[in-house]
Amino acid sequence: MYRLENDLLGDLNVPEKAYYGIQTQRAIDNFHISGVRLFQYPEFIKGLAYVKWAAAETNFTLGLLDEKIKNAIVTAAKEVIEGKFDKEFPVDMIQGGAGTSTNMNINEVLANRALEIMGYQKGEYQYCSPNDHVNLSQSTNDAYPTSIKLAAINSNVKLIGHLKLLIASFRKKGEEFKSVLKMGRTQLQDAVPMTLGQEFEAFAANLEEEIERLNQNSALFFEINMGATAIGTGLNAVPGYAKLCAENLAKISGHPFVSAPNLIEATPDTGSYVIYSSALKRMAIKISKICNDLRLLSSGPRCGLNEINLPPMQPGSSIMPGKVNPVIPEVMNQVCYRVIGNDLTVTMAAEAGQLQLNVMEPVLTYAIMESMELLANGMDTLRMKCVDGITANVEHCREMVLHSIGIVTALNPYIGYKNSTKIAKEALESGKSVYNLVLEHNILSKEQLDDILNPENMLAPKG
Amino acid sequence: MYRLENDLLGDLNVPEKAYYGIQTQRAIDNFHISGVRLFQYPEFIKGLAYVKWAAAETNFTLGLLDEKIKNAIVTAAKEVIEGKFDKEFPVDMIQGGAGTSTNMNINEVLANRALEIMGYQKGEYQYCSPNDHVNLSQSTNDAYPTSIKLAAINSNVKLIGHLKLLIASFRKKGEEFKSVLKMGRTQLQDAVPMTLGQEFEAFAANLEEEIERLNQNSALFFEINMGATAIGTGLNAVPGYAKLCAENLAKISGHPFVSAPNLIEATPDTGSYVIYSSALKRMAIKISKICNDLRLLSSGPRCGLNEINLPPMQPGSSIMPGKVNPVIPEVMNQVCYRVIGNDLTVTMAAEAGQLQLNVMEPVLTYAIMESMELLANGMDTLRMKCVDGITANVEHCREMVLHSIGIVTALNPYIGYKNSTKIAKEALESGKSVYNLVLEHNILSKEQLDDILNPENMLAPKG
Amino acid sequence: MYRLENDLLGDLNVPEKAYYGIQTQRAIDNFHISGVRLFQYPEFIKGLAYVKWAAAETNFTLGLLDEKIKNAIVTAAKEVIEGKFDKEFPVDMIQGGAGTSTNMNINEVLANRALEIMGYQKGEYQYCSPNDHVNLSQSTNDAYPTSIKLAAINSNVKLIGHLKLLIASFRKKGEEFKSVLKMGRTQLQDAVPMTLGQEFEAFAANLEEEIERLNQNSALFFEINMGATAIGTGLNAVPGYAKLCAENLAKISGHPFVSAPNLIEATPDTGSYVIYSSALKRMAIKISKICNDLRLLSSGPRCGLNEINLPPMQPGSSIMPGKVNPVIPEVMNQVCYRVIGNDLTVTMAAEAGQLQLNVMEPVLTYAIMESMELLANGMDTLRMKCVDGITANVEHCREMVLHSIGIVTALNPYIGYKNSTKIAKEALESGKSVYNLVLEHNILSKEQLDDILNPENMLAPKG
Amino acid sequence: MYRLENDLLGDLNVPEKAYYGIQTQRAIDNFHISGVRLFQYPEFIKGLAYVKWAAAETNFTLGLLDEKIKNAIVTAAKEVIEGKFDKEFPVDMIQGGAGTSTNMNINEVLANRALEIMGYQKGEYQYCSPNDHVNLSQSTNDAYPTSIKLAAINSNVKLIGHLKLLIASFRKKGEEFKSVLKMGRTQLQDAVPMTLGQEFEAFAANLEEEIERLNQNSALFFEINMGATAIGTGLNAVPGYAKLCAENLAKISGHPFVSAPNLIEATPDTGSYVIYSSALKRMAIKISKICNDLRLLSSGPRCGLNEINLPPMQPGSSIMPGKVNPVIPEVMNQVCYRVIGNDLTVTMAAEAGQLQLNVMEPVLTYAIMESMELLANGMDTLRMKCVDGITANVEHCREMVLHSIGIVTALNPYIGYKNSTKIAKEALESGKSVYNLVLEHNILSKEQLDDILNPENMLAPKG
Repeated sequence: MYRLENDLLGDLNVPEKAYYGIQTQRAIDNFHISGVRLFQYPEFIKGLAYVKWAAAETNFTLGLLDEKIKNAIVTAAKEVIEGKFDKEFPVDMIQGGAGTSTNMNINEVLANRALEIMGYQKGEYQYCSPNDHVNLSQSTNDAYPTSIKLAAINSNVKLIGHLKLLIASFRKKGEEFKSVLKMGRTQLQDAVPMTLGQEFEAFAANLEEEIERLNQNSALFFEINMGATAIGTGLNAVPGYAKLCAENLAKISGHPFVSAPNLIEATPDTGSYVIYSSALKRMAIKISKICNDLRLLSSGPRCGLNEINLPPMQPGSSIMPGKVNPVIPEVMNQVCYRVIGNDLTVTMAAEAGQLQLNVMEPVLTYAIMESMELLANGMDTLRMKCVDGITANVEHCREMVLHSIGIVTALNPYIGYKNSTKIAKEALESGKSVYNLVLEHNILSKEQLDDILNPENMLAPKG
Repeated sequence: MYRLENDLLGDLNVPEKAYYGIQTQRAIDNFHISGVRLFQYPEFIKGLAYVKWAAAETNFTLGLLDEKIKNAIVTAAKEVIEGKFDKEFPVDMIQGGAGTSTNMNINEVLANRALEIMGYQKGEYQYCSPNDHVNLSQSTNDAYPTSIKLAAINSNVKLIGHLKLLIASFRKKGEEFKSVLKMGRTQLQDAVPMTLGQEFEAFAANLEEEIERLNQNSALFFEINMGATAIGTGLNAVPGYAKLCAENLAKISGHPFVSAPNLIEATPDTGSYVIYSSALKRMAIKISKICNDLRLLSSGPRCGLNEINLPPMQPGSSIMPGKVNPVIPEVMNQVCYRVIGNDLTVTMAAEAGQLQLNVMEPVLTYAIMESMELLANGMDTLRMKCVDGITANVEHCREMVLHSIGIVTALNPYIGYKNSTKIAKEALESGKSVYNLVLEHNILSKEQLDDILNPENMLAPKG
Repeated sequence: MYRLENDLLGDLNVPEKAYYGIQTQRAIDNFHISGVRLFQYPEFIKGLAYVKWAAAETNFTLGLLDEKIKNAIVTAAKEVIEGKFDKEFPVDMIQGGAGTSTNMNINEVLANRALEIMGYQKGEYQYCSPNDHVNLSQSTNDAYPTSIKLAAINSNVKLIGHLKLLIASFRKKGEEFKSVLKMGRTQLQDAVPMTLGQEFEAFAANLEEEIERLNQNSALFFEINMGATAIGTGLNAVPGYAKLCAENLAKISGHPFVSAPNLIEATPDTGSYVIYSSALKRMAIKISKICNDLRLLSSGPRCGLNEINLPPMQPGSSIMPGKVNPVIPEVMNQVCYRVIGNDLTVTMAAEAGQLQLNVMEPVLTYAIMESMELLANGMDTLRMKCVDGITANVEHCREMVLHSIGIVTALNPYIGYKNSTKIAKEALESGKSVYNLVLEHNILSKEQLDDILNPENMLAPKG
Repeated sequence: MYRLENDLLGDLNVPEKAYYGIQTQRAIDNFHISGVRLFQYPEFIKGLAYVKWAAAETNFTLGLLDEKIKNAIVTAAKEVIEGKFDKEFPVDMIQGGAGTSTNMNINEVLANRALEIMGYQKGEYQYCSPNDHVNLSQSTNDAYPTSIKLAAINSNVKLIGHLKLLIASFRKKGEEFKSVLKMGRTQLQDAVPMTLGQEFEAFAANLEEEIERLNQNSALFFEINMGATAIGTGLNAVPGYAKLCAENLAKISGHPFVSAPNLIEATPDTGSYVIYSSALKRMAIKISKICNDLRLLSSGPRCGLNEINLPPMQPGSSIMPGKVNPVIPEVMNQVCYRVIGNDLTVTMAAEAGQLQLNVMEPVLTYAIMESMELLANGMDTLRMKCVDGITANVEHCREMVLHSIGIVTALNPYIGYKNSTKIAKEALESGKSVYNLVLEHNILSKEQLDDILNPENMLAPKG
């Protein structure tokens, strides 16, 4: 058997002192798959604990759970949220059973910790059972997806924090470079002038739109299916449970959760994951395009565009001395490709739902959470180790503009498309500048020409 | 050379009477690629004509275009919108040049038709030129994506019309089947009872969410970049053009277009296509899952679930007499796989944008428009030739519930998870019914049992 | 309903004179999906006719079919292969029923044409029936995939023809440019010298590998499942039919078909399509990379790399005079993105097989055939309208090398990595050349240096 | 910053005792991305060590390296291959720089260990330097991809070992179930009879083809580019190095490596990864289809097909007592979706190669290696915890066949398609058996019928 499983983690067999129990242990034994464990995603653990807390409160209010047991479960849940029991969540992120193993992992940890809190021994489930008390009025099919949604919402908040810092970094460069005149390019061909500041501000503006996209699509996670129990009919849940549980979860988590209007529809539905993953993909596409641009603009130093310099991070080559490579945009491109790959995994998993459940939720969850972490890590790296330190080659940028043919476009309104084309062609063939050719052919006076071809006049419409 | 090009279309070389001109002809010669022509997407042609109309009005208001020429261009555009010149748009949907060929196609057709309207001969471009008049203040880089956006918005409106009909069809079946008791299934295993009506209503509710998703994401198309000209700096456009042109387009099209706040950002950006394509993908995933369910539920007739009957559409087999196959859900699944494939094409094309432009917009546009057409056609087919005619095998559905083990779940709150498990296991091994076993073991009285195990009581939480 | 269906095709309702019959008509009515018809893929029609011919011969040899009927079917099949009846195949490429409609379309056309040949009226199926004679010993589930395989094999042969021409075109340029010294680049940064000829020869060599890949993977299509009938058990086929039918198909088609060793395995299996589509994807990835390179190398003309010139194909811009864009590589990139999207459609369709059949074969077939046509058309376009006409900017290429820092790499073996790094850094900061700095610091003599830094010496290992 | 990085691993900052050095440390600092480290893929570490060993031998033979240093490097490489230094490879699997960090990691570890072996202190690089000795005649751009290829080849050998065990497990069940008569199904509809043994043997046969596919595509890894140095021109390598190094690597690794005929072509080429990843995808598609089948066949127990029983692995539900879910096939499906997602990452990364290098190789490598590990782990799990323990519901399978309508297909050759259809229809409508209806209508004698409809006669063609 391969060793994806990290041997350095040491023995994970259920120790006597463990809080998780036999069902968790069975899951560990059964699903030796990815080697990536639940404890590597603490937001997910928190999501599970919040959901159990909300369920316990709801069961108590509805008279289904003793106050003492409720209090113990809630205290245990709070401790889990504080991160005190992370090591107790060793189940593999890829698992069969639609998340049953993960649900039983939290049920067992909370039950055993609650028993301790109440003064019992771990395992004395007659006083607080993983199934009959912690999981009361619930099913994996409602508790698990609700936990994922909470985890995704909280991760999204963090992700946007990282994104905002990156946007600010691009914006600051936009301001810094606002006077750096350079050539704009379409289809990789010289087009018309712009400033480097406009280019970097456009990166900022382009990413800024993602804040709303992420939030708009994350908002779909607010609709939860607690109270659905097995298939959405709410069998074994009492009337009012669904609504109250959503309210409780909203209160303790601070997010505006609501009960899905149709629990049978909501239970197998993975639409919110699909579109949120799409939003991550959209952001990845944008960031990848920006990184491609950064690599193009910094190409050279002598045989490329050489408009900007990225901060050198490491010797660029084990063989070519002095070579400095754009390693940070490169790593970010790769993050984006993985996010796009993960989106396909989400697509496949979502399409595989059948009848009243989608059992592929674990891999779907894993893909989304990994994408969020990769993007957050990548954006911090891109910002701190690359964007913040970018410098411009001001003179080189300006020289390229003055030497270009593209400025002939500005003559269009004065001499027509056809004449402009002729001048452009002659410039290209003769190596002469557009400026000199227009004078040579007596098409415009020097004053007119100086005004029209002043590159700074070309940066915005003029009246 | 292959014959993807449809020979039945006859000769498409520029006839003497054609309204398109030399640049369009050159595009036909250069791009013999997909064999799918612009005229197969009339909404796209309309989008182009509306944009040219709006530009002409704007140029006139700003004093850049004579009233006579403006009027002729507008009249020509209206005729194109009415569909009178569809055959004049023969360029391939996949083309290089970021849509220049398509833009020149509409420029040439409108110029030549405007010339006729003004009493000139086609080709007398000194009176109305494709470049200097019809394309005035524009570039392919703003006119082309704006046209796509308008086309997508209008196609989205139509698509939602088809979607609503499909939702209504599922909802009607939900109502029709509301008393058909059946077994719910999770992980393809018998779970707990529900009604067939709940199942079909869930299909309706599941798809209903897509209306808002499609509209929410289509709304991103309202932000356009007219006035950007080549790269967003607005070179050769006059101040105020961008804003006024968006207002004019809004007025004549009836959609709330606005000018993008940052035209340099907006010009190469394909984010709106990416997320709209994702929304189409999300809908395709949902429809595919529903079709999978329809095929599962109608499996049999004797060796499958056999809960429903799909209307027979054709002899099911060239060899197996009497076999009736679920051909309509099958064709819809395939539509969905193509939509998902198209979404990847969009992803690749969007990521390939460089610097101030994305030249891959034609294939991206083609992919999205094809997906919308396939979904519209497929949904109509699914509705009319399948869903509307579905019937239920009421007795068979009920018998399966009564015979099931899953109803033991309802005993949980009364006898606990552990005892329920024992009963379930014994039922499974002995072939006996849960009902008889509970009585046999004197666990509950017959009255209690009848009440708890009444399937109808299991369809919703009970107090 | 949308108008993807090409209205220009005219009425396709079954005319009195049609050779296809009621089942084909029903398929037209049922599957109004993509608007792409079987007649747009004549290789596919040929594949179907060859299979029916082989089956008729086999049935005759085994005593199941009269000689007269056999001869009529064979003659009809030959006429179809000659393309005489293409218009008679109007079924949509996307259809439910695992290809039953397509199978019945060929069955009906052949039966009716055979009837005519025998002197009967069309429709007098008592003398030659689509089901009982043309389809004898067959099922859609064996005849349809076998036809696809034959179509794919023949299309592959053609595709490789187009590929070889493209390779030859790159190779010729490699020879033409063999003395053009230029800078090699890694990570878009200046690396070490090479020739433009080496670069183009590498394109040729890179694509040359695809010939073997395509052939190796196409070879999997030689294994067919004729004789499987419905599910591979061969019910209603006589012993020996499977083997003999494969032999007959091999004989008449000229391809080494063999009967699959396990027909039950072979019938639902779509593995050969999956890996062949992957081979198409691999080629698309390579061509896309090459097109990206062509666009990079021709970027400029003054603010880019400007090493090569692509032949101008059309005015590059509706607004920027004189701009010439790389429209042909751009269109090829888009073809590649569509091929990659189609590969995902194949993936989804293949994964959706269930039990003894994969009903998604139609969309899978369509995706592969479209990819082949797009690649064939695109490669011809790329070759004739781009590669053949590429010219080099010899002087500019050489100047960049001499001016570069990357040549310092050649000093490594003489002065060590650390010293080389210092020189490189100083060159970069001072703007001086590597050559002068080495002399300035007295590190090597002018003779040594001239020898080492002679760019031509850097093109291959030296002793 | 997120905590994908596993905090439980403890401090990984370069300890005094570390063998890796400053460049590795810099990579750790720069690329805090995925949290998945090189040491989690020991085959990859081995690949790197073998390559360095081969290079040292080659350099020694060519007179470029002292015997003493060579011996020390080789000894160190062997120790690394034995796994003694795994902890010394902490660089992130996703990194910029095209693998430079990974290459420097092995260079540093080997240099420092070699120094120790020779009696020096770690860091006394004047005696054995990571760049000048361990990396002699190499570049990241040749050493890194060659190492990956060796790692992939060895991992492929292991993967096939796991695959063969799974095939054997299916084959054994095929034998065990060879007399279990059951209904075959196409399009989820009852078709014609087969045996459960045929179905399981088909699973075995279907997967057996993958052995050749994996080996055939893995064979492309034998072509390596050692001696290419930076871009394939072999700058700084001596003549003969490339060929000799390939021979040495072949000798010490036991695999038939050869030097690529065109090193400039080979250096940026990622075609071998693309098609090998495709082969993994093909296998994943097949396994996913098989797992879907296993879940279908075991659906029930009372409201599904219920033909087979999967060994119960865990309580199937936290709420539904006695429910046993197909958790192992489910987890395998999810593995397959991840492999398919990874293939897209490979596609994106491969397409992103530019000019003389593909810098996206790290994420591409990571994706392939993860896929291989997931498949190996998943196949073992599927075999041991599911397939090996599957049992058949023999009686239920047989009853379904006898009760079916599909057996009417066998009447086709005797009474024609049209009559068979009538019988089938009447059976379906009346609920009667096909058997009785044929007798009732006096179509065939009882003797004839018994012979034809004997299900065992339907399992293969009969004479």
